[in-house]
Amino acid sequence: MTASSASQTHASGQDTVHLTLDDVRALATRVLQHYDFTAPHVRYVTETLVAGERDGCSSHGLYRLLSCINTFKAGKVSPDAEPELHDMAPALVRIDAKGGFSQVAYQMALPHLIQKANTLGIAALGINHCAHFSALWADIEPLTDAGLVALACTPSHAWVMPAGGSKPLFGTNPFAFGWPRPDKPAFIFDFATSMVARGEIELHRRAGKPIPEGWGVDAEGRPCTDPATVLDKGAMLTFGGHKGSALAAMVELIAGPLIADMTSAESLAFDNGARVTSMGGELIIAIDPQRFLGEQAETELARAEKLFESMVAQGARLPSQRRYQAREKSLREGVWIPKALYNDIQALLSA
Amino acid sequence: MTASSASQTHASGQDTVHLTLDDVRALATRVLQHYDFTAPHVRYVTETLVAGERDGCSSHGLYRLLSCINTFKAGKVSPDAEPELHDMAPALVRIDAKGGFSQVAYQMALPHLIQKANTLGIAALGINHCAHFSALWADIEPLTDAGLVALACTPSHAWVMPAGGSKPLFGTNPFAFGWPRPDKPAFIFDFATSMVARGEIELHRRAGKPIPEGWGVDAEGRPCTDPATVLDKGAMLTFGGHKGSALAAMVELIAGPLIADMTSAESLAFDNGARVTSMGGELIIAIDPQRFLGEQAETELARAEKLFESMVAQGARLPSQRRYQAREKSLREGVWIPKALYNDIQALLSA
Repeated sequence: MTASSASQTHASGQDTVHLTLDDVRALATRVLQHYDFTAPHVRYVTETLVAGERDGCSSHGLYRLLSCINTFKAGKVSPDAEPELHDMAPALVRIDAKGGFSQVAYQMALPHLIQKANTLGIAALGINHCAHFSALWADIEPLTDAGLVALACTPSHAWVMPAGGSKPLFGTNPFAFGWPRPDKPAFIFDFATSMVARGEIELHRRAGKPIPEGWGVDAEGRPCTDPATVLDKGAMLTFGGHKGSALAAMVELIAGPLIADMTSAESLAFDNGARVTSMGGELIIAIDPQRFLGEQAETELARAEKLFESMVAQGARLPSQRRYQAREKSLREGVWIPKALYNDIQALLSA
Repeated sequence: MTASSASQTHASGQDTVHLTLDDVRALATRVLQHYDFTAPHVRYVTETLVAGERDGCSSHGLYRLLSCINTFKAGKVSPDAEPELHDMAPALVRIDAKGGFSQVAYQMALPHLIQKANTLGIAALGINHCAHFSALWADIEPLTDAGLVALACTPSHAWVMPAGGSKPLFGTNPFAFGWPRPDKPAFIFDFATSMVARGEIELHRRAGKPIPEGWGVDAEGRPCTDPATVLDKGAMLTFGGHKGSALAAMVELIAGPLIADMTSAESLAFDNGARVTSMGGELIIAIDPQRFLGEQAETELARAEKLFESMVAQGARLPSQRRYQAREKSLREGVWIPKALYNDIQALLSA
């Protein structure tokens, strides 16, 4: 940790600590090593935490170290898992993460997925038996960097009610998509199929504020604006009514039974009250536009750029724009994290 | 046409004509033959019209014959196109519909897509240069019938504004998904990424009724409840805010440039005021669960059934339930179509 980590008051008015991205990396590394995570896990879990902090997604940044260690202490993640690759079919690969965090398994499988997509045109990867907290954009980006179009999704814990129902069944089930852009950061979106993130409702509970209608229901499935009731007894809602609910069901199916892994209900049962990182699978599909387009590739990818230009020209933001802006700034100036979070992380090192 | 087509007043109070599904088939066949569509086009276009009418999706049933013939009269669809198959990569196939309706191209490519998915585990099909009006569930069902998991999407005409924008750019861009179920009709959803179907807004215009807020905007991108303004000068909105908008953009990309076909803006330019069926492409991805799961297939597919049971047990409807109920009834009792529509179709035969 360098001297730059001195406490100061940030523009936000919060007490913050300034860290370079190398500081962030060093801190996460120290904590994971302290809890005896093996070198590959330390390296790749750290890299997703650094990426989250760097891109201004603080809920996927250093803050996640706390829940990583909680998950470890609850015995719900293996610190030394050695993933096992299964070549299921020419265009399909599965990797058994053996109860570790998803990152090492993903890194091991990535070259196989890319090679299959390049060779065959389209391929899919199922990551199994992993504790999953990585933002999906972090799993999409290496694929768009390799010039591939990619989709990814993962179930979580059963907190979300299907449209027309009354009980939690689906997870917040994020769905992500990426499109490679020549000489530009990729077009990537990554959203929860729930109306809002669970953390958003948590924040309202802590602040003692009601949540807007449409976010959740009580134990009888009736509209409810009390965050505690929604979180503890009721259920969250999907975005976009029955359409979002249909997408959430799709995520359960294709990143659950399709790859022989848990649904969100099964993951919550496995959690068994520990309230830690969800366990389950992730499905990633990669398509090589060069194979779909042959000689037309360059012209066609240029037509996609025209679509993006039309969006931006009328004031619509490209989905990862804010993240890329935060990235530029963080690479230049480092990041500010709440002093309280910094202290909580330091405390992990003395435990 | 049999005697059963005698006019009568239906429970709905509308003047209707009763037809068996064979009557529907015979009527559509006669009309398409009258306009010199070649035998394969007559057969497969007819089958999607019959399927729409059968499943209670009247907007994709006989009603579409009118726009099929309008599209033909405007010179925007070829009645005798002979599609051409292009094997782009081991797992990718494209079929050039040569300006015909999508159906014949789809039928020609279908066995190739299934064979590739069975052999490799996952495969994709791009249908190019087709006039597209088929509901996507009709393209998903042959794949779920073959035991495959499938996704499909297609752009349309640029009528929908990207979230945060002010001008129409995306189509209503439907997205569909199917999951095969042992001994049961497949789990299939198929929804527009626009807030509502364009026809829904048309109906409000005809009825002289305002549309609810959230469906559309005026020419300056301001919320608007006047259907005529939204349709003629403004834009429709996506469902689910920026998330639905992100999905709509994905559909533009993967069923547009990724398969060397038109975006919705390009399709509308090609239409050039004719107001007929949109021209462009469709992307279909098929995954073989048997290949992803090997010996685990039976157990895993049974776990998906548990998810469906949990949905139904809490009162959530499975997405195609209504359609399957309508199908059972139509197969048993035939269908009732508005007398006015029946007359309009008859008029096509004397033109």
